[in-house]
Amino acid sequence: MQDSIKRPRVVILGGGFAGLSAARKLAHAPVDVVLVDRENHHLFQPLLYQVATAGLSMADIAAPIRRLLRKQKNTRVVMSEVVDIDVASKRVTLGDGELEYDTLVVALGMQHSYFGHDDWARYAPGLKTLSEALDIRRRVLRAYEVAEREPDPERRREWLTFVVVGAGPTGVELAGALAELSRFTVAGDFRTFEPKEDRIVLLDAADRVLQAFSESLSDKARVQLEKLGVEVRTGTKVEQIDEHGVKIAGDFIRSRTVIWAAGVRAVSLVSKLGTDVDRSGRVVVGPDLTIDGHPEVFVCGDAAAIHSNGEPVPGVAPAAIQAGHSVAKNILADLRGRPRKPFVYSNRGSLATIGRSAAVGTVFGRSVSGFVAWILWIFVHLLYLVTFRNRVVVLFSWAIAWFTYGRSARIIVQSEEAAHSPR
Amino acid sequence: MQDSIKRPRVVILGGGFAGLSAARKLAHAPVDVVLVDRENHHLFQPLLYQVATAGLSMADIAAPIRRLLRKQKNTRVVMSEVVDIDVASKRVTLGDGELEYDTLVVALGMQHSYFGHDDWARYAPGLKTLSEALDIRRRVLRAYEVAEREPDPERRREWLTFVVVGAGPTGVELAGALAELSRFTVAGDFRTFEPKEDRIVLLDAADRVLQAFSESLSDKARVQLEKLGVEVRTGTKVEQIDEHGVKIAGDFIRSRTVIWAAGVRAVSLVSKLGTDVDRSGRVVVGPDLTIDGHPEVFVCGDAAAIHSNGEPVPGVAPAAIQAGHSVAKNILADLRGRPRKPFVYSNRGSLATIGRSAAVGTVFGRSVSGFVAWILWIFVHLLYLVTFRNRVVVLFSWAIAWFTYGRSARIIVQSEEAAHSPR
Repeated sequence: MQDSIKRPRVVILGGGFAGLSAARKLAHAPVDVVLVDRENHHLFQPLLYQVATAGLSMADIAAPIRRLLRKQKNTRVVMSEVVDIDVASKRVTLGDGELEYDTLVVALGMQHSYFGHDDWARYAPGLKTLSEALDIRRRVLRAYEVAEREPDPERRREWLTFVVVGAGPTGVELAGALAELSRFTVAGDFRTFEPKEDRIVLLDAADRVLQAFSESLSDKARVQLEKLGVEVRTGTKVEQIDEHGVKIAGDFIRSRTVIWAAGVRAVSLVSKLGTDVDRSGRVVVGPDLTIDGHPEVFVCGDAAAIHSNGEPVPGVAPAAIQAGHSVAKNILADLRGRPRKPFVYSNRGSLATIGRSAAVGTVFGRSVSGFVAWILWIFVHLLYLVTFRNRVVVLFSWAIAWFTYGRSARIIVQSEEAAHSPR
Repeated sequence: MQDSIKRPRVVILGGGFAGLSAARKLAHAPVDVVLVDRENHHLFQPLLYQVATAGLSMADIAAPIRRLLRKQKNTRVVMSEVVDIDVASKRVTLGDGELEYDTLVVALGMQHSYFGHDDWARYAPGLKTLSEALDIRRRVLRAYEVAEREPDPERRREWLTFVVVGAGPTGVELAGALAELSRFTVAGDFRTFEPKEDRIVLLDAADRVLQAFSESLSDKARVQLEKLGVEVRTGTKVEQIDEHGVKIAGDFIRSRTVIWAAGVRAVSLVSKLGTDVDRSGRVVVGPDLTIDGHPEVFVCGDAAAIHSNGEPVPGVAPAAIQAGHSVAKNILADLRGRPRKPFVYSNRGSLATIGRSAAVGTVFGRSVSGFVAWILWIFVHLLYLVTFRNRVVVLFSWAIAWFTYGRSARIIVQSEEAAHSPR
């Protein structure tokens, strides 16, 4: 990690949208960039639910960070776990070493939050990483396999009941995709049950789905979901989750497959920065996205509580990309002796899909819904997909899936232990 | 598992090439077919090495067995582990139940054989399942990541040394793919080592590679491999494998990544049939592929020691497909009161690739090598790929990889435990 000519070192923690866009913007800057991530790949998180519901393969939505940054000669990629951050000595501790920095960019994102019920994680996995998406896919596909062989109708019904907790964009997209998977894709494949026996339940404590959108869009989304056969239960607080299902006020939904899409919080590591955090554990940052008293420490992406024009900035990919760019531009400004500029979020809109031909959202301030919104959604997501192969293959997979209702990634990979047991 | 009209039940164990082709041929027969496999997918085994070396995604070479057989109304697919076979009571015990049969088709394939050194499995995984392919991919890609951060040149060299044990088709294809991965694909991505530091070693106890082919083709294959930078060591017996590398006569090759492609044997479960097995544990079968004294028990695919015109039939996909068809035809003959026909293998040839533009093999009795053989290889493999999506996507992936040397499936998925550790 030594160079003959000493240039300032910018250490970026996290290779998500924020960290990657900051790194890219620094490609030609007279600095040494080190990007640290515990995974080897950048993940197109907005499509992760498609991997979980067997619509896309892992490689369709992930690209090696090294490959994305291979041409930046001033940049090194380190695959390692961040263990500690010490802003006083300007030092980051990794699982297998240490890194000193002149400027630090923290873009570590969010983790699941079970609101103090971490024991629920076992029964209701969340969806943040490829590994978790494969886990959910395995649980869903296996549930059908067990249901096929279960002679008792009561127990079969438990295996054919899928509960999604949390009706934000991820929960809504997951519930829609599960409904289509069960009602169309796997329908003809089984012999002992009919698709109508399936039950997809979407729960949320709030009184409507997609709270971040307007009420009329929430209503449209609900109608679309119900058309797909999803049982939407808003105003419903989860009291307990165990292997048999979900306890809500006055009812127990028996289900063998529960997915958690309800809560996220900033990764706990950001507490090491020693600054104020908000209710979701996100770091409070100033207008230039640095922390109080440390102009050399930037926090961006979902791990930061960012405001723009007095409004909170939502935790979506475009905001993270813009924040990463802003951080890089201010690092460049410092190098050139120019003043920093405050971050301003430009909201071009947001979209959420419901199944294979509907979506709702706002684009440039206007509400959209239905098929047009869905086409827009496809277009926007393809635009963001980072490598050429991915764009074409994903479009192709979608086209095939659309016409055939087939889901080609319907593969159960055995978990490690199962794979190594003797035959 | 009860029907109102009692029809003979054919139970097929294994959804590989042999089992699947037998099941398909029985689509319109007046029997109930039950196909049992512990995986939910049929695997296109000849391309598994491409998944292990990050050239293809899992879904490109696997298809859900249910989907392949969904239109056969007389067929049920059961995802379960076969635990025992009792030919006296005509009963199969599964991990979670029992199945009675009138006719049994055993097509359980092969497992790795470490020639009595099962402890080597930990250090030198083999390549039979998708899960194993992902494991090998993880080990290979991780080795580069560790090498990038290893300051000691000696230890870095250990991480950059890849040993493939066994120079049959799988070993040759793996070594060629690894050489290209290291020399071209990842070359520009790392900062602390050069591709020329890599070392790919291919070991075999026999005196030439690809023993099943002619000597002149073996020679051509060796030349191609060496052109790619693979160190071919034939006549070299492995004495010991541990975490530091491979001990051979008079030498110890220090390596952190060893892959086992040397030995296979029939799955041990076939010993339950109580019949003679050959040196590789394969069941000795008669001309109609049944076992001695049990005309209702067929064994086909790699688990059977099959002869055709006095010659042993090789363990390749076309032979397995033909054997499966022959079994189904004899089951149909029984139903129609016609005599059974002995199995005759029609050898159309075989091919092995070496890297991205060369192959060797025989086609309709003629030797082929070089680029023409490689084009043939692609054509033949695409023909066999079972679903439409797969053919197009695989061809597309190959085309992109060929022109760019890129490998889009270069994704390390954390193993289960790592994924669930707190951040």
